[in-house]
Amino acid sequence: MRTDVCETFGIEFPLFAFSHCRDVVAAVTNAGGFGVLGAVAYSPDRLEEELRWIDDHVGGRPYGVDVLVPGKIAKEAEASGDLLSAIPAGHWEFLAGLFERYGVPAPDLTAGRGDARRGGRQVTEQGATELIDVALRHPIRLIASALGPPPPLMVERARAAGVPVAALVGTVEHARRQVQAGADLIVAQGSEAGGHTGEISTMVLVPEVVDAVAPLPVLAAGGIASGRQMAAAMALGAQGVWCGSVWLTTEEAETLPAVKAKMLAASSSDTVRSRSRTGKPARQLRSAWTDEWDASPASPGALPMPLQMIVAEGAMGPIGTAAENGNEGARQLVNYFVGQVVGRMTTVKPARQVVYEMVEEFGEALERLAALGDG
Amino acid sequence: MRTDVCETFGIEFPLFAFSHCRDVVAAVTNAGGFGVLGAVAYSPDRLEEELRWIDDHVGGRPYGVDVLVPGKIAKEAEASGDLLSAIPAGHWEFLAGLFERYGVPAPDLTAGRGDARRGGRQVTEQGATELIDVALRHPIRLIASALGPPPPLMVERARAAGVPVAALVGTVEHARRQVQAGADLIVAQGSEAGGHTGEISTMVLVPEVVDAVAPLPVLAAGGIASGRQMAAAMALGAQGVWCGSVWLTTEEAETLPAVKAKMLAASSSDTVRSRSRTGKPARQLRSAWTDEWDASPASPGALPMPLQMIVAEGAMGPIGTAAENGNEGARQLVNYFVGQVVGRMTTVKPARQVVYEMVEEFGEALERLAALGDG
Repeated sequence: MRTDVCETFGIEFPLFAFSHCRDVVAAVTNAGGFGVLGAVAYSPDRLEEELRWIDDHVGGRPYGVDVLVPGKIAKEAEASGDLLSAIPAGHWEFLAGLFERYGVPAPDLTAGRGDARRGGRQVTEQGATELIDVALRHPIRLIASALGPPPPLMVERARAAGVPVAALVGTVEHARRQVQAGADLIVAQGSEAGGHTGEISTMVLVPEVVDAVAPLPVLAAGGIASGRQMAAAMALGAQGVWCGSVWLTTEEAETLPAVKAKMLAASSSDTVRSRSRTGKPARQLRSAWTDEWDASPASPGALPMPLQMIVAEGAMGPIGTAAENGNEGARQLVNYFVGQVVGRMTTVKPARQVVYEMVEEFGEALERLAALGDG
Repeated sequence: MRTDVCETFGIEFPLFAFSHCRDVVAAVTNAGGFGVLGAVAYSPDRLEEELRWIDDHVGGRPYGVDVLVPGKIAKEAEASGDLLSAIPAGHWEFLAGLFERYGVPAPDLTAGRGDARRGGRQVTEQGATELIDVALRHPIRLIASALGPPPPLMVERARAAGVPVAALVGTVEHARRQVQAGADLIVAQGSEAGGHTGEISTMVLVPEVVDAVAPLPVLAAGGIASGRQMAAAMALGAQGVWCGSVWLTTEEAETLPAVKAKMLAASSSDTVRSRSRTGKPARQLRSAWTDEWDASPASPGALPMPLQMIVAEGAMGPIGTAAENGNEGARQLVNYFVGQVVGRMTTVKPARQVVYEMVEEFGEALERLAALGDG
């Protein structure tokens, strides 16, 4: 079950695991897949620390890093000077009202704003560049850009370091732009995926993108958490798969226990594409947070990225803490990015076991299809 | 490439084609697949005529019929007496305003209402029952219910006639209910499909439904218009596929030329799930019609099924006619149900050629996967 992508990246099977948790990244890489650390939430110092830990735990096996560079929007926000000053008072008021109505201890908004400023910083061009520089000082084998075409600076530095650049896309047009911008590997991500996602499903998107960017390799993302889904992705023409959600309920994941419990209980109908956490449509658990921002008559609506991220991240910390302390309102509000595959995430397992089970079911699916071909 | 479903239904490959056009149904059946005639738009007399034509053209090869029985809602509407009296004046006014603003010759709303009454009738229980009775007088090999569990009466009559019952579902919960109601075959239809559709994608939905209803066979629908997508569906555990959209741009299809042209030009981003034609979320071409009903500040919002169907069907006839006469506003308004695969429907072909190309690409995908299994 090896594809060209396996040769290129020195892996045993073409399973790429996106996670913000270094333990998951290392576990998947050590199991024969390819771990990719999501770096957006980290400061440069923290990223340095995480990558050093990974280097110490994978024995030279390949892994990558994912940053989030939203390009245009971040530049506009930076140009406007202080990001915080661009947030209307009504948004802070709606947020304060949410804390009150749900009986969650209100954070000190001044302190919250300090945290928040950091929360929005990495998605500016300068913030992302610092993360890229840290990442390229480590033996990474892939650098990925989760939003928009990779900036020229990222492509140049990655090229100079001999590191392939991957880019996530939700439409064929985006894929073509990514290729022009210098991407070496395209991740075609369907609407069912967790996090920032478009409207076209994986089943429709993957063959379109495969044909549009050939001979560049394509990984399929969105709706893939099992070996059958992995086989389906390969049938569509992908050279491998990129999975994010499935790791969130693994033993290693640092998912908040209250969120993990919601994920384990959720069905595939319990996610929503909402702008309420980042300012761009991102699939996440449906919760009181998404209901209030998206449907409450009092809602001022989500701000553009990265402004909504600043508002939301400043709130999510205290809400998460209160939820862990048993606060009922906070438990209703708390959520996290996850795809529709959350419906099949029903037990906590080690990440390595998830990998082995996927590979085993993938093999079974190939055998079943081979029998069909013979019939 | 035969599955158990091929044995059960006496077909050469497990490709089910849903179409309102008898020529498509016959072409697919004669090519070795299984044509299913969508009967909702027909009066009992017209259905009788269509099925007689099919009988005369398929030489005993298998085909089926699909009706639409929305159960609860239709009963409520019937209970309320005259369906027309349940439509608020504001909806007719908004519709009249649309004709005016888009410069489309306004239909005589009285006549329109007469047509419309017929348009909503088949989706009441009585209307559907008449269609079922007509269908079962023909040598059909499958009767399908497109919305909600098949009514007991439909299951009883089909059983007595020895005809298997298929049911379309968009969630695992619906699938379980359909099995309890007596369905023999489940069509798991993802959100990317054309027509009435849920929110869960095919990639996520199919394995869930396969596991939930085993050992009953499952067909995959939504996002399937090519052999690679057919192979992906089988990788997910489906025993076959159910395709609707791909026939709309075939030579045989009776799709309005103005709509066909829109479909040939559309990308996979050009559809929308909207309640504006039937009252239930149905994926269709995005057009001025969907924009106006879904997003115009003046819009009264869609009515429940079948009331919105009555409003919309009374309008779509004159709009279609005006579009064919070159009216620009009508061309902006006109649309039709279609899935995200519309982006790959770029040339007009005979339905038979579509079947052969799908089967050929399906075989190639199986070979590619088999090589992967050997590697």
